[in-house]
Amino acid sequence: MAQPKNPERSGRTGAPTHRRGLVENEIYEHATRLFAEKGFASTTLQDIADALGVTRPAVYYYFKTKEEILARLVGEITQAAATDLGEMTGRADVSPTERLKAITRLNVTRIGGQAARFRLLIKSESELPDDIAHAHREARRQVLAAFVRVVREGVERGDFRPIDPRTGALGVIGLCNWVAWWYQEGDDIEALADNLAEMAVSSLRRTDERLPPARGTDGALALLREDIDHLEQLLAAERRGAHGPVDPA
Amino acid sequence: MAQPKNPERSGRTGAPTHRRGLVENEIYEHATRLFAEKGFASTTLQDIADALGVTRPAVYYYFKTKEEILARLVGEITQAAATDLGEMTGRADVSPTERLKAITRLNVTRIGGQAARFRLLIKSESELPDDIAHAHREARRQVLAAFVRVVREGVERGDFRPIDPRTGALGVIGLCNWVAWWYQEGDDIEALADNLAEMAVSSLRRTDERLPPARGTDGALALLREDIDHLEQLLAAERRGAHGPVDPA
Repeated sequence: MAQPKNPERSGRTGAPTHRRGLVENEIYEHATRLFAEKGFASTTLQDIADALGVTRPAVYYYFKTKEEILARLVGEITQAAATDLGEMTGRADVSPTERLKAITRLNVTRIGGQAARFRLLIKSESELPDDIAHAHREARRQVLAAFVRVVREGVERGDFRPIDPRTGALGVIGLCNWVAWWYQEGDDIEALADNLAEMAVSSLRRTDERLPPARGTDGALALLREDIDHLEQLLAAERRGAHGPVDPA
Repeated sequence: MAQPKNPERSGRTGAPTHRRGLVENEIYEHATRLFAEKGFASTTLQDIADALGVTRPAVYYYFKTKEEILARLVGEITQAAATDLGEMTGRADVSPTERLKAITRLNVTRIGGQAARFRLLIKSESELPDDIAHAHREARRQVLAAFVRVVREGVERGDFRPIDPRTGALGVIGLCNWVAWWYQEGDDIEALADNLAEMAVSSLRRTDERLPPARGTDGALALLREDIDHLEQLLAAERRGAHGPVDPA
């Protein structure tokens, strides 16, 4: 977060680029907060300067227009996500299940970490200037393509149920994106990412075959033993009369 | 959709309440479209009258303020969803799995059918007047409570994995809500609802325990028989030499 009293900013110890980065970040923080509160259209560079307690030219030195601030928002949120996801999606050495888990985790962690800005961007989509809107749509298309590719490969390998890959991908993307509307500071984002990633792969995993062929005869014997144990427990419970009504279905 | 040339409206055949309903609907259609395009804050009753080609008092006859139009939006979207979901959620005669499937289907169908207005409402949350914002939050809380209840009961019965019910519920709600951002007119909403409902229950279904206790002794015997069949097949395949490498894990 912005720290107006940071000695590195008021003193002269920081390198110019470092100081520049700090001020730019501070303007960015205040601007995105104002956009979220008042709407993008109703916010002026003067409002941003007022919020920071500086003059309008001081803001102008860093951002010529408020659209430049939106461009940074799209770059940090949609475009960065597209790049990160694209890298993981192409890893042919990792199974579709593990790749789907990885990109879901990545997506949830990113969105949770910048929930307010993610919501702001979704809310501002219809107000984006043409060139920024184009970059945003293109990056969103890449994110969708990454998920579709992994789901399609999972379906083709028989790891996932035979679902339309676009529907499967958009379902998982929704599960990720909605995090921006309910994640609260202090929530354990790593635990949430693990849970949602597990939900994502389970939502598509093929389960109609009870026994994966790879488990072989030893696996089949182990299952038989488990089932016999289970049957013994059921019969013992019935004999004790402690067992509730048994649903024969 | 609004039909300005509808004879029932320009003629005198319709009952007054019918005519009133038609005009009100037409104002509502145009108003929500304008809110979505220009933002709620930037839209006036005059803009709505202009879009309809009528005078401002003509609009005023049906809606005193634009906030009244928002109140209808919240009523039709969030509050109606809360009511419908609440009814299905309380059905103790239906298993948590079937109830989760039903409320997911219902939610997806509703959201797909009014995608633009659902997005508009989410986008306008911070601009709602206090009383409408309160009603909206309360209805959203009820929708969340419905999903949490079904997930919790599923976890308690052992039908679902031992996940935090709130996380599971919000994951499924996200999968539903995001439909508003990708559903396109002409998509088969019933098929989408089926697919997403299946994803929702699969995302939580317990698969580590192979045998749900409710299936009883008959179920346990049936599984034992399946296991023996499977083992026989594996052994026969090995004897034929047609079997690939067996993973002992």
